[in-house]
Amino acid sequence: MSHPFATPELDVSEWLNTPDPIQLSGLRGRVVVIHAFQMMCPGCVAHGIPQATAIHNTFAQENVVVLGLHSVFEHHSVMGPEALKVFVHEYRIAFPIGIDRAQLGQAVPRTMQQLGSKGTPSLIVLDRYGVIQLHHFGRASDMGVGALLGKLVAQSATIDAEADQGGVCVPSSK
Amino acid sequence: MSHPFATPELDVSEWLNTPDPIQLSGLRGRVVVIHAFQMMCPGCVAHGIPQATAIHNTFAQENVVVLGLHSVFEHHSVMGPEALKVFVHEYRIAFPIGIDRAQLGQAVPRTMQQLGSKGTPSLIVLDRYGVIQLHHFGRASDMGVGALLGKLVAQSATIDAEADQGGVCVPSSK
Amino acid sequence: MSHPFATPELDVSEWLNTPDPIQLSGLRGRVVVIHAFQMMCPGCVAHGIPQATAIHNTFAQENVVVLGLHSVFEHHSVMGPEALKVFVHEYRIAFPIGIDRAQLGQAVPRTMQQLGSKGTPSLIVLDRYGVIQLHHFGRASDMGVGALLGKLVAQSATIDAEADQGGVCVPSSK
Amino acid sequence: MSHPFATPELDVSEWLNTPDPIQLSGLRGRVVVIHAFQMMCPGCVAHGIPQATAIHNTFAQENVVVLGLHSVFEHHSVMGPEALKVFVHEYRIAFPIGIDRAQLGQAVPRTMQQLGSKGTPSLIVLDRYGVIQLHHFGRASDMGVGALLGKLVAQSATIDAEADQGGVCVPSSK
Repeated sequence: MSHPFATPELDVSEWLNTPDPIQLSGLRGRVVVIHAFQMMCPGCVAHGIPQATAIHNTFAQENVVVLGLHSVFEHHSVMGPEALKVFVHEYRIAFPIGIDRAQLGQAVPRTMQQLGSKGTPSLIVLDRYGVIQLHHFGRASDMGVGALLGKLVAQSATIDAEADQGGVCVPSSK
Repeated sequence: MSHPFATPELDVSEWLNTPDPIQLSGLRGRVVVIHAFQMMCPGCVAHGIPQATAIHNTFAQENVVVLGLHSVFEHHSVMGPEALKVFVHEYRIAFPIGIDRAQLGQAVPRTMQQLGSKGTPSLIVLDRYGVIQLHHFGRASDMGVGALLGKLVAQSATIDAEADQGGVCVPSSK
Repeated sequence: MSHPFATPELDVSEWLNTPDPIQLSGLRGRVVVIHAFQMMCPGCVAHGIPQATAIHNTFAQENVVVLGLHSVFEHHSVMGPEALKVFVHEYRIAFPIGIDRAQLGQAVPRTMQQLGSKGTPSLIVLDRYGVIQLHHFGRASDMGVGALLGKLVAQSATIDAEADQGGVCVPSSK
Repeated sequence: MSHPFATPELDVSEWLNTPDPIQLSGLRGRVVVIHAFQMMCPGCVAHGIPQATAIHNTFAQENVVVLGLHSVFEHHSVMGPEALKVFVHEYRIAFPIGIDRAQLGQAVPRTMQQLGSKGTPSLIVLDRYGVIQLHHFGRASDMGVGALLGKLVAQSATIDAEADQGGVCVPSSK
């Protein structure tokens, strides 16, 4: 099932906390939360990562998948994969994290550029079709994020049921 | 539209922050959040009321209605209506508050007894049919409460659509 | 030992959490912290009372005495002694609290007027001579308050030693 | 002026946020606060560094000097000087920071070993003679730390005055 407005795959050079690389297309049918951060960004450490962890702990993984995206756009030399692994270990982060692929001669990494993110922390929420429903830069309230995710999870279930019945609002694959 | 398991009306002796008394039956079709508190309960002041306010600020009132319920079960003489009005003014509480009706010769007020609440703060969430979906005593996370409300709001919209089409899952009124 | 600039006695109509009324003159030689509050003042509940409790827990009582002063200047009818006793019980306040004496025909109680306080919460710190060293309206940082109290406690000890040796910087009583 | 129990000099391989290396002996007469941390230690980032900053902002530098000490005892390869400089920049740390000298073949750096610190965050407070008055591992309250520093600052002033008068409690230099 593919949607014409589905987000392209994350361009990731390495994955942590997952045995296999993650494809967004393989997560269709689930809500996906992408928390874009940098390990030395104070707002990410203080608010973004605790919020991503709260999402990870609140929702069942068959409904909502949380992915970290390490989108380094400054100080690349000290936020490489080895440093990130230590950070992830020390902060006990449990969800998968993809390292946004660096671009030769450019500060901004590839996925961040594709998504048009303004910076870190950014919270990106994809519905079950992989379509972006939220792209928020900065701090978002837990109540507001919880409300959106709860809504998307419920819609998913409904649409699943419709799809089973041959409903017409499900985008068809070509 | 009435549901066989709909919560009975709140037994309230006086309403604040609303021109008219509120009937739960008049709110069918909307999600209703009841925050049961006592004005001198530290957990209510520190967590419960800020959370109820966050709900009130996050959701549109046509989807989610927040009601305070002042369920005094101790120290009745100093938490009467006049004291509550000052408290509501000083804490800038904006949503309607019902005063749970005191019972002669009993500490626990009537609605609290009917609902079987363990104490304050308690958070009670009714779906669009007036059926209890959550009855939580103590502190609940904003992420979890937001998720539940988001889900119930989305279900409401879906069921509305079904109802318009003559769907059969809407309990009929006799 | 009396000091020409010593603060006059608190004009208190009733004391809680103490077997006997407290006289400031009886506390000369100790640093005294007066936390002026109203039980329905949000800033007092959120910041002032926790800070007063932190002071009470950090310093030995032979060095620093914490006194609450319930200075009601509005909504008198619902913040009377019985209501205050419930509040003190529910919030587990352990230090003595004096009820600032109401004045007929005036909103502001007597001690608050004498001290010239702007409102609640106010933090008033007296050195060992009973002289005001801090009169702060609003929120003060724990680090700053701790620093001042630590300094005054140390000075007390020093001056005590000097006084024992017949030092001349101790104001003499007439 | 040297004290027989004065703390030995910090063994630091590089200093940040200061034009010249810092010698503890050059700070005699002032209270010195050493905040030992690691840039990827969650407790340091959440509590230790904000507390060190609060000290730096509360006390005049002629009374209290705050020094960071980056005591890396694990994951050395990703917490080197370049990474630390970025961290210091991103977290807007304003006080001087010394990098505890690594020891060949040992995880624990030299100053941490000399001081016998248990880990990070650790807070070490030296009085005006350079003698350790507090060596606290873990989280300490702002009220308690403020109290100690206020006391030490006041004692300093007193002892200064005594010293000026030829008082005998000042350790003599040989």
